[in-house]
Amino acid sequence: MNELLRKDADQIIKEAIEAVLPDEAVVKALKAFTPKDGKVILVAAGKAAWQMCRAAERVIGHIDGGIVITKYGHVMGDIPGVTCYEAGHPVPDENSFIATEKAISMVSGLSQEDTVLFLLSGGGSALFEAPLIPGDELADITKQLLASGADIVEMNTIRKRLSKVKGGKFAKLCYPAKVFGIVLSDIIGDPLDMIASGPAYPDTSTCKEALHIADKYGLKMSEMTRELLKAETPKMLDNIEMHITGSVKELCNAAKNSCERLGYEVVFLTDQLECEASEAGSFMGSILKSNCKAGKKLAFIAGGETVVHIKGSGKGGRNQELALSAARKIAGIKNACVFSIGSDGTDGPTDAAGGYVDSDTAGALKAAGLGIEQMLENNDAYNALKETGGLIITGPTGTNVNDVTVALLK
Amino acid sequence: MNELLRKDADQIIKEAIEAVLPDEAVVKALKAFTPKDGKVILVAAGKAAWQMCRAAERVIGHIDGGIVITKYGHVMGDIPGVTCYEAGHPVPDENSFIATEKAISMVSGLSQEDTVLFLLSGGGSALFEAPLIPGDELADITKQLLASGADIVEMNTIRKRLSKVKGGKFAKLCYPAKVFGIVLSDIIGDPLDMIASGPAYPDTSTCKEALHIADKYGLKMSEMTRELLKAETPKMLDNIEMHITGSVKELCNAAKNSCERLGYEVVFLTDQLECEASEAGSFMGSILKSNCKAGKKLAFIAGGETVVHIKGSGKGGRNQELALSAARKIAGIKNACVFSIGSDGTDGPTDAAGGYVDSDTAGALKAAGLGIEQMLENNDAYNALKETGGLIITGPTGTNVNDVTVALLK
Repeated sequence: MNELLRKDADQIIKEAIEAVLPDEAVVKALKAFTPKDGKVILVAAGKAAWQMCRAAERVIGHIDGGIVITKYGHVMGDIPGVTCYEAGHPVPDENSFIATEKAISMVSGLSQEDTVLFLLSGGGSALFEAPLIPGDELADITKQLLASGADIVEMNTIRKRLSKVKGGKFAKLCYPAKVFGIVLSDIIGDPLDMIASGPAYPDTSTCKEALHIADKYGLKMSEMTRELLKAETPKMLDNIEMHITGSVKELCNAAKNSCERLGYEVVFLTDQLECEASEAGSFMGSILKSNCKAGKKLAFIAGGETVVHIKGSGKGGRNQELALSAARKIAGIKNACVFSIGSDGTDGPTDAAGGYVDSDTAGALKAAGLGIEQMLENNDAYNALKETGGLIITGPTGTNVNDVTVALLK
Repeated sequence: MNELLRKDADQIIKEAIEAVLPDEAVVKALKAFTPKDGKVILVAAGKAAWQMCRAAERVIGHIDGGIVITKYGHVMGDIPGVTCYEAGHPVPDENSFIATEKAISMVSGLSQEDTVLFLLSGGGSALFEAPLIPGDELADITKQLLASGADIVEMNTIRKRLSKVKGGKFAKLCYPAKVFGIVLSDIIGDPLDMIASGPAYPDTSTCKEALHIADKYGLKMSEMTRELLKAETPKMLDNIEMHITGSVKELCNAAKNSCERLGYEVVFLTDQLECEASEAGSFMGSILKSNCKAGKKLAFIAGGETVVHIKGSGKGGRNQELALSAARKIAGIKNACVFSIGSDGTDGPTDAAGGYVDSDTAGALKAAGLGIEQMLENNDAYNALKETGGLIITGPTGTNVNDVTVALLK
């Protein structure tokens, strides 16, 4: 392994993840926050809700009420003035509904001098939910949609209409108070009407579309539920101010800044990568091969979330697979490395956040009698990278803003 | 379709291909050619041999003998002082052997004041061949190697030892005359010992490797043939000067220059792309999505040769598939396009050189009732692009230096 490159990689990884930790992200976003004269109510929902809420409470000091709704096991202690709930994820349960109803009553009857500080993170769709229909029927309709092959946009078009808070309705409930939203995005492209099903963002889907979807898939539902599909969601909201603070954009940007501090000239490729992991690795490797004689320190950055179509029975994750695939391409090029990490610190069902490979990786695997092609075929990147010291272990980071891949030429 | 972008695309395509036409490439390379006082013998082998030879003859004027060995149907007329042969490709036949023996006798007995102008292009492995063993046995061993799953490096390691000209041996036969080589490369990375099996380049493979391969695959061969595997190929050649003139590097570079003339800021990604075509298209599309708000005209260039793993029964080629896949990503982004072409003007078994897509393509397909995902699944990019006017038709170009993909933001 090239120890100098690995050292650079570790520093870039550390700095990129730190920049998108919930605490950091909230503190940064709150710089734009000037409360009005009235009350400040804090509502935090999602997997990072507790961290975001704690950070916000520390910055703001006094709040007039607050609630955290997060996943089981994710409340780490008391936060002054805040009630913390744990609830079901990815399937909402009674606790989701109880906690969300509590949030609704906290924001009811506010004046236009008041502010709802709304902290949203991944998982909010399940955790922040108060259905307009019985929970059983909602679960049944969700099951029908999943079985029918409906895509996520179609699912949300239906679900927004069966919910008290989704599709901009939560912001409407807060009215006339202002909603200052801070969002940690886990969806590529940061679509604010999709993240947690957009509780505080104008909805772009229509009743006509909802009814078409119900017919298309022959969804079975009560007459009352069908009537709800005809009630339009908010198309305009003038009491919201949303800030996307942590997202793969920030993750890439932090990696870029870190690379530049280390003297690399940075080429930012994309923060919306969605292709097959091993093919993305091949592409990144090809980029290094063709630029290795540029005579300067170069960094290529691609963020997003690749996919793996599993064929084998090995152990790995999309980031590890991407890196291992790149190793084939950069074998023998001097001073080249590729590394890729999931910002949550968990890549696939492994204890690694991702993988690191360099010019020496392919040779080291060959010397150990391991066939790089076979290990890729078997989706066994973890064991390949374990052999070469290429596993990146960070532990769970507490954030989740997709992945970043960096290719360096030193 | 965005007519302005398509116009830019057509100009870039035209200029990129023109720069790598055999004539152009030879004329450029000959600028470095200063013949010695002796004779000039012209030997041209490969699919573009005739064009390269005609261009060279026109530049140089008088030559002291010349030979063209190309594929059947590829001799377009007489060239003064040159004998033209047509022979078998991709499987060599008797005409390959006869013509190559003729070339060998032309370069025998030359002095150190003489020069062999050696013009090489794709297809040279089959066309330029004089075996040291009976043609039947060579064909049989080739068949065994193919059936065993040997890779191209292993195949060539064996074949170089059974040939009078491969693996640097032709340059040795020319000695003491100087060999001035002009190479039109059809292999990614331009490995001079691989193109046409490297008749005028030091061989890196060894006898030990050759014997190991013969044993590994249990190749059946005569005792005499086995002895030939023990005869080492030239490892040093001091009478050669090789110029790679047309290659995917030049193709990319010409595309780059053309983009710059049109006012685009160019990001050169790679000239060694080798991944799955549709995934490369997705990657290029992701790059455009993330850069579309940069506020300047940008061009991203990637050359190489992608692959398609065929699953469906549709019509298409790797360049068309790459483009169609990118169309999914850039739907709705303003002023973005992706196009990809094979420099030979033939993409897959179609009459198109490649494909062009822009921000409007996905919408146009939807309006026509065509599912872009289904057409990709069915490898039917040709019919999708036919519908949207996205086919790029150049006709056969007479050159073959892989593919180039360009993504534009205007």
